[in-house]
Amino acid sequence: MTTPDPSKPLTAAAVLERCDELASHSSLPDGLIERVYLSPEHAAVNALAAGWMRDAGMATWQDAAGNQCGRLEGATPGLPALLLGSHLDTVPSAGRYDGILGVLTAIAVVERINADGRSLPFALEVVAFGDEEGTRFGTALLGSRALAGTWLDAWWELTDEAGTTLHDAFVAFGLDPAAVTAAARTSNDFVGYLETHIEQGPVLEENDLPLGIVSSIAGARRFQITITGKAGHSGTPWTHRRDALAGASEAIVAIERLARDADLIATVGHLEVFPDAVNVIAGRAEFSLDLRGRFDADRDAAWQRIEALLEEICSTRGLHVAVHQTHAAPAAHCSDRLRGVIAAGIRAADRSDDGPAPLELLSMAGHDAMAVAHLTEIGMLFVRCAGGVSHHPDESVTEPDVASALDAFEAAVLALADGHTLQDPA
Amino acid sequence: MTTPDPSKPLTAAAVLERCDELASHSSLPDGLIERVYLSPEHAAVNALAAGWMRDAGMATWQDAAGNQCGRLEGATPGLPALLLGSHLDTVPSAGRYDGILGVLTAIAVVERINADGRSLPFALEVVAFGDEEGTRFGTALLGSRALAGTWLDAWWELTDEAGTTLHDAFVAFGLDPAAVTAAARTSNDFVGYLETHIEQGPVLEENDLPLGIVSSIAGARRFQITITGKAGHSGTPWTHRRDALAGASEAIVAIERLARDADLIATVGHLEVFPDAVNVIAGRAEFSLDLRGRFDADRDAAWQRIEALLEEICSTRGLHVAVHQTHAAPAAHCSDRLRGVIAAGIRAADRSDDGPAPLELLSMAGHDAMAVAHLTEIGMLFVRCAGGVSHHPDESVTEPDVASALDAFEAAVLALADGHTLQDPA
Repeated sequence: MTTPDPSKPLTAAAVLERCDELASHSSLPDGLIERVYLSPEHAAVNALAAGWMRDAGMATWQDAAGNQCGRLEGATPGLPALLLGSHLDTVPSAGRYDGILGVLTAIAVVERINADGRSLPFALEVVAFGDEEGTRFGTALLGSRALAGTWLDAWWELTDEAGTTLHDAFVAFGLDPAAVTAAARTSNDFVGYLETHIEQGPVLEENDLPLGIVSSIAGARRFQITITGKAGHSGTPWTHRRDALAGASEAIVAIERLARDADLIATVGHLEVFPDAVNVIAGRAEFSLDLRGRFDADRDAAWQRIEALLEEICSTRGLHVAVHQTHAAPAAHCSDRLRGVIAAGIRAADRSDDGPAPLELLSMAGHDAMAVAHLTEIGMLFVRCAGGVSHHPDESVTEPDVASALDAFEAAVLALADGHTLQDPA
Repeated sequence: MTTPDPSKPLTAAAVLERCDELASHSSLPDGLIERVYLSPEHAAVNALAAGWMRDAGMATWQDAAGNQCGRLEGATPGLPALLLGSHLDTVPSAGRYDGILGVLTAIAVVERINADGRSLPFALEVVAFGDEEGTRFGTALLGSRALAGTWLDAWWELTDEAGTTLHDAFVAFGLDPAAVTAAARTSNDFVGYLETHIEQGPVLEENDLPLGIVSSIAGARRFQITITGKAGHSGTPWTHRRDALAGASEAIVAIERLARDADLIATVGHLEVFPDAVNVIAGRAEFSLDLRGRFDADRDAAWQRIEALLEEICSTRGLHVAVHQTHAAPAAHCSDRLRGVIAAGIRAADRSDDGPAPLELLSMAGHDAMAVAHLTEIGMLFVRCAGGVSHHPDESVTEPDVASALDAFEAAVLALADGHTLQDPA
């Protein structure tokens, strides 16, 4: 454990350099980024993050689910911790900030607080979750759900594209599947959870603001939809065709219209056709649906209409449809107390106590905070990203915005420490 | 070269057994069939076919494009040949008769004629084409276009899914790309081309007929269509989405409607999405279009409307579309003379000289005969298949229908020999 030098606080430029260094650990060539759960790249970035955590003064460990953790004790050893974190895994052809910026902001803020020699009424822990995106096994938040103690045994049989089960991937990564419950923490361990994340939306940019407070996180439901028809020669007349891709296309267009009308967001991002040949009618089409909205009830009602629509389209076309829910999360609400400390942090970073209240935003994107909400109250700081673009190599943030985020996140932690001492004497 | 035993003509049952034996040479597990151009399976079935050709009394060779050939001399050595054939390659998850039945029927009929000791006014050649489906390199009829002398140098750079060029696949198969022109034959080599093929449509079955005459073969045009939008997080609001798969789906539905209205057949059998993740808006969608119709002019006019439609859909959605034609064939017409001998063959197999004229059908499926039509006149015999199903493991023919096809194809060859002697003394 090295002692941080208080005269050299970790700058926004240094944090962005670390983002670049992490981006070089990818399973894709040509500068494209993909880093999935339990991969060699996952191990590599955990090792990097662990080094930076130690540089910040933390004791480190990799938990039983492959999350990289670090802890800085508070005023006395063994206090409950304020958990700070986000994730290091990515989607395919990802950007370099989604999740990553949150982990590095957390580490940098711990380094600053440690360098200042401040003694807090709670410990600080940082967690770099190993799976938030669900890229490899189709089910999101595996890392944070292990920590939250909501891991499901059914997941062990999930397979990646190569047919490797989650169970075997654990073993290959050097983890013991039987010990995954050791990653689970309890409510008593924490005083709260704070996460910094890029907005992944255009609202802050459109309002000319670098930072915002998350009010709540819309819950997504995800489905795997399989439409089965009959493969056949591309010369087959219309009367004898049962084209699974034509049915899937009609469904995708109809789902889009229905979701727009219901003020929901629907995404079909994955689609696979079988046998997938130029001169063969598709006998089967499998696609994903990610459905999210401001209110869980609206979203669930829309899904019922979508199911009816799928049945109707397929019945008209002589196709069969099967649906399988792969993920479901209720909306997660950020606590008044943590929204308050994030607001205080933004004001401190702005050096404007009397301006308008910082902007509150609904997050349409899911976050680790949703899983951690099972254990403790949550709060999130959003950072402006260029054009609202994310999950894409063009994902971009500015150095001044990251500097504001570091200041605001540090100030939020200190604001919580002040309030915590008053309200909940340790 | 063995001498066939005239007391044991090759039966329909034996031909079906050979279909089963060929089906066992596949690159797919679990009994599924896929056999592509210049693969180890291609080499294996060529060797089998060559053995059967020799059993039928033919001299054999593999030509410079990997087509397996055999020849039985006519009344005097060196006469122009009647070419009989079809292909041994398959689509993915194929049936066991498309193409294959035609090759085996041709070999069996040569064996019968040789066994009977008949002396014809032309030689008989059989060709088992190595690529008709275009499964591996996306461009169909590679085998028959090599024989027809219409090979294009641009094809050498075509790649398969693994990135192997057609050039390198030639070398790996033991062929010399520079020598491919040696596979080209000339019009003087042939008196005509006859092909047996399963109908791949429901017309014969619906008319309760085992056999039919092909009047002409509809020409297909094939396109690779690429729609480009912008990948992004699945929580991105509607105002900021440029979803390539949503655009492709709208296009597929619109193409289907337009083609139906124009009495054309359109098939989108291949579709791929990038980056293809549950929680990422599709930044790119690539799909194939196979467009065919009774009249080339109708088909070409419809393609112009489809192009306009693609532009319109993509412009509305902020997407970019690029189209690339990968294949184009004009309709190929079967000659009066060869339609006549096939009709005579069907009547002979039926033993009914005074029944209604055999049914003539338009083939919506493409065939090697289209390429061979560049060299010589063509004729085709269609065999009923169950439910019109083809390019699917359920592809099926009956033994009595195959027996009728063998009889009819033999009788057609003999009818041509009779007419040939009269009309074109050798």
